[in-house]
Amino acid sequence: MGHMNNRSRAIAILGGTGPEGTGLALRRARAGETVIMGSRDAARAEQTADAIRQRVGASAHVSGMENSAACAATDLLVLTVPFAGQAALLKQLHPAIRPGSVLIDATVPLAQSVGGRLSRTLGVWQGSAAQQAAELVPNGVSVAAAFHNLSAELLNGEEALDCDVIVCSDDANASQITRALTAKIPGVRAIDGGKLENARVLEQITALLIGLNIRHKGHAGIRITGLPPSAYR
Amino acid sequence: MGHMNNRSRAIAILGGTGPEGTGLALRRARAGETVIMGSRDAARAEQTADAIRQRVGASAHVSGMENSAACAATDLLVLTVPFAGQAALLKQLHPAIRPGSVLIDATVPLAQSVGGRLSRTLGVWQGSAAQQAAELVPNGVSVAAAFHNLSAELLNGEEALDCDVIVCSDDANASQITRALTAKIPGVRAIDGGKLENARVLEQITALLIGLNIRHKGHAGIRITGLPPSAYR
Repeated sequence: MGHMNNRSRAIAILGGTGPEGTGLALRRARAGETVIMGSRDAARAEQTADAIRQRVGASAHVSGMENSAACAATDLLVLTVPFAGQAALLKQLHPAIRPGSVLIDATVPLAQSVGGRLSRTLGVWQGSAAQQAAELVPNGVSVAAAFHNLSAELLNGEEALDCDVIVCSDDANASQITRALTAKIPGVRAIDGGKLENARVLEQITALLIGLNIRHKGHAGIRITGLPPSAYR
Repeated sequence: MGHMNNRSRAIAILGGTGPEGTGLALRRARAGETVIMGSRDAARAEQTADAIRQRVGASAHVSGMENSAACAATDLLVLTVPFAGQAALLKQLHPAIRPGSVLIDATVPLAQSVGGRLSRTLGVWQGSAAQQAAELVPNGVSVAAAFHNLSAELLNGEEALDCDVIVCSDDANASQITRALTAKIPGVRAIDGGKLENARVLEQITALLIGLNIRHKGHAGIRITGLPPSAYR
């Protein structure tokens, strides 16, 4: 599994030039990590990387690459694309994703993908967008589901967040790596949510939170209460 | 709509002798409300009412009745039965439920209903157990979905809870009544979650929380962060 236990390896954020990807990259770069912004357009990826460096400071390790090049450059990948683009991107990147990689999927199958509402989801045959991702990655690549419920607006701000991230994966090592990454975002606790199949609930929670944001004009997140301290690691 | 705006009217907890129903009744009785425990067996309902009176004190207004009698006695109903019994009970109670009643449904379609896991849900044709309830109640009866994610163990304890209840209904008045009731449980905030169709996410969250309880040995609940104070009422 290669560099599986090296937490300081570079993280590539595929389709990372949208608000969620940019916000995650900003928080990672602030934590001192090496971040590769991925986009279908290398120039756009470099522009986004520049913008993040300007916010974080000259010491930030942020570069921009076309998505395939980003996959070739590291084995820790985050996917933050609209659901309508997820399957096509994963098929395109199939030859580029390195064996042993961990892919963290944050895709939410919003009905908006087909012209419907932001506060509704589509049914995905595999059960969830994350399970669809798991079907499309090369053999030997582990998928974890996480980050669905982090507000892009808040990620792109300066303040600590006030929410928990539930991580689901069928690979205990991928789950552990994802939780360690998550816990570096100020204010965020990571919780092991068990198998990847549970990602379907995480994805639906996003639709609920979007509905609450529309109704109440906020940036909703969730905290899980009532668990022992050992659950948050 | 009869007593629709009278918040102190009696509340009947149908199928109320299980742990969730008993816990809700306990909290309602402590808030000084009149509670009717409903059960298919009137003697069992009375026993449960006795047990609650013993915990709350002689001043508690708690009685026990067969479910149909409970429906006839008030127009504010809470349904806390296993999913396997929900449809049959609502069909049986159809003649007894008074026009203008509000029915608060807390049913979760756990796969356990058909021998599956507590941490998985079944697909319900109508979209959610709450929407199934809405299809089965008499015309003129409003359904609100709430209380799915309150831990029965914590409801049955002495302490304030640490969680929020999202209320979904197609009837703004039913939603408001349900939120006012909810907010009387110490530590619980009520949030308007919009239309009844959103209950499907609330029901799935319960399965996620049950999975977290099994994995981490806790009594998980959720808090919604990031909304303005006006959202919690």
